[in-house]
Amino acid sequence: MKILNQRFQINYQYPVYFTKHLFHLDNPDLRNFFGDHATAPILRKALVVLDEGMVLHHPHLKNEIARYLQSIPCITPVEPFIVLPGGEAVKNEEGYFKEIVTAIDHCGIDRHSYVIGIGGGSLLDLTGYAAALAHRGIRHIRVPTTVLSQNDSGVGVKNGVNFLRKKNFLGTFSPPLAVFNDLDFLETLDDRNWRSGMAEAVKVALIKDKAFFDWLETHAGALVQRDMAAMEQLVYRCAALHLQHIASGDPFESGSSRPLDFGHWSAHKLEQLTGFSLFHGEAVAIGIALDTLYSQHIGWLTESEAGRILSLLKKLQFDLYHPLLEDAALLDGLTEFREHLGGELTIMLLQSIGQGLNTHEMDHHVIGECMRALKESACLKMS
Amino acid sequence: MKILNQRFQINYQYPVYFTKHLFHLDNPDLRNFFGDHATAPILRKALVVLDEGMVLHHPHLKNEIARYLQSIPCITPVEPFIVLPGGEAVKNEEGYFKEIVTAIDHCGIDRHSYVIGIGGGSLLDLTGYAAALAHRGIRHIRVPTTVLSQNDSGVGVKNGVNFLRKKNFLGTFSPPLAVFNDLDFLETLDDRNWRSGMAEAVKVALIKDKAFFDWLETHAGALVQRDMAAMEQLVYRCAALHLQHIASGDPFESGSSRPLDFGHWSAHKLEQLTGFSLFHGEAVAIGIALDTLYSQHIGWLTESEAGRILSLLKKLQFDLYHPLLEDAALLDGLTEFREHLGGELTIMLLQSIGQGLNTHEMDHHVIGECMRALKESACLKMS
Repeated sequence: MKILNQRFQINYQYPVYFTKHLFHLDNPDLRNFFGDHATAPILRKALVVLDEGMVLHHPHLKNEIARYLQSIPCITPVEPFIVLPGGEAVKNEEGYFKEIVTAIDHCGIDRHSYVIGIGGGSLLDLTGYAAALAHRGIRHIRVPTTVLSQNDSGVGVKNGVNFLRKKNFLGTFSPPLAVFNDLDFLETLDDRNWRSGMAEAVKVALIKDKAFFDWLETHAGALVQRDMAAMEQLVYRCAALHLQHIASGDPFESGSSRPLDFGHWSAHKLEQLTGFSLFHGEAVAIGIALDTLYSQHIGWLTESEAGRILSLLKKLQFDLYHPLLEDAALLDGLTEFREHLGGELTIMLLQSIGQGLNTHEMDHHVIGECMRALKESACLKMS
Repeated sequence: MKILNQRFQINYQYPVYFTKHLFHLDNPDLRNFFGDHATAPILRKALVVLDEGMVLHHPHLKNEIARYLQSIPCITPVEPFIVLPGGEAVKNEEGYFKEIVTAIDHCGIDRHSYVIGIGGGSLLDLTGYAAALAHRGIRHIRVPTTVLSQNDSGVGVKNGVNFLRKKNFLGTFSPPLAVFNDLDFLETLDDRNWRSGMAEAVKVALIKDKAFFDWLETHAGALVQRDMAAMEQLVYRCAALHLQHIASGDPFESGSSRPLDFGHWSAHKLEQLTGFSLFHGEAVAIGIALDTLYSQHIGWLTESEAGRILSLLKKLQFDLYHPLLEDAALLDGLTEFREHLGGELTIMLLQSIGQGLNTHEMDHHVIGECMRALKESACLKMS
């Protein structure tokens, strides 16, 4: 028997820009980026995949993007743009995936060209997935347009689509070439989408950064009142914590722990049980509330800390109960969460505000009690 | 405008074993590998995807594999095994991909469990693709069973399936967890499959290793006579050169050059034009012959060197002409080759035996002349 040992290293890097009016002709950010990146004198095309909600809210956006891209010497935008529905449903239908990869083929988008996804987290997940697979990986630029995608999923390294009714069952770890967060896009979000993304900020503060939690408490009123300066800070700090976590830990998740999924085991299942009528952030807020009560119940959090957390979520106007929490299938979420990452069941809970800690068992009876407590609290609110 | 710069590094490593009788109970290689790798006390399942040609040629193989895997303390093989047709056709049908990922779900294969692909290059390409996408990447072990997969595709980092009639249009760079080359499987190959894989050995010798080319010349007779000791050396040396190239160069192909695809631009197209009735290695032999004549025509190779190359290919019993070489669509292979990698057209040619060199233009008229020369040479052989 002989063995050859293969070893190599891949370096990944990408910038995350925080800007405004990204596609205004006088904003140099994207143009400068391409100027630095697309240096060799070869044909580089750009295929744009656009969230149809964006087209609705910004009727001039398509023209603006086309004009902007045409103004960059080294880039040729291909037309027409692909316009797809936003929201989780776009990740359920294989036809949308095929639409993107077919366009990549027809338009001759090669591995030195670009796919630019502009939209919410779901559209970016799908677009990133298609870009990662076509020709074994087209360079992919993300322009997240929701709070959730700008501070969390859109700045990370994952993509995915749903399969067999399982969320993100198929996907890859494929860092983008660059991310451009345009604060301006948040202005036109409806209140549900504005609110929804803040759940991930609460989550990352709870597991990593008490000072950020304090800041969120102080600014909850302003955030609900749609104060843009407050939201700008929230997005930047949450994205920074998210990026730090990825770079310092286990970027492609080869271990069993996934701290950024605090509150997510029940959230993923709840989303699925509601047929994705509940938004991801709304489900995460409920998931955080549930695992906060659980952390208190097993003596990790004090009553006062748990109270502060639930109170912040309520101040941010999240509902912390959903009838399907009582669906017997909800506990399957624990198994599916374990299977998705693999290895030992590993659930992040809270030791204190700003400090997460993994556990490897969850008591179903205690989970049931925490669910009932959330229900009672919701009844009290209604009465 | 603010920027956060994300940076991290991923280390990849995997062993390539060269062994015999891998699944005999007294062969410790696979058992020891799992013993070293699967250390944490968690449930680790193994899903086997098997080439149906193997089942035909080795009627006891399924039982032998099951018994072997059951004998490993830390592993639970899931049954039934998935048995799929070998050959390129398996990469054309989406149904086979879905069969594997559905089994991964139904059997509860998680990211700490294993998918073991056993078969030729096509089956391994498909299995690796499915394993790379399910749960964003299941640990994947390859057991290549043909000359081609043992010395070339099976030891590398790529997977893929065909889409829109384009070879490997969808795929990823996903290093396997380990590769086990079992020489014993080569015994039962039919002559076409035995011969086919040797084209990649000629290729890698031509671009990297003159001594290996000399060795191939000396041993061509033994190789054709199916001398196992000679084949063992061929597979090992070719695999070693392939691995070295990947580790020392551009493992995930972010540049425009792909030296290991010497002779492949026309080969990929020819395979497609024949509906994959021509095997990959058979097409590669023709592609090598074509680009050898081209290298001679532009004055890079001497007539004597080109003669030695064609003569070796013929000694290995490759046909160096196919009527579809004259199909007008063949030249589209150049465009498709460029698009697949992207950037500038970059074709490896030969400066001498053992020394490849990139060119960025190919003269269609000269290609035509080289095709005619191959045709004439084939006519002479027949007359």
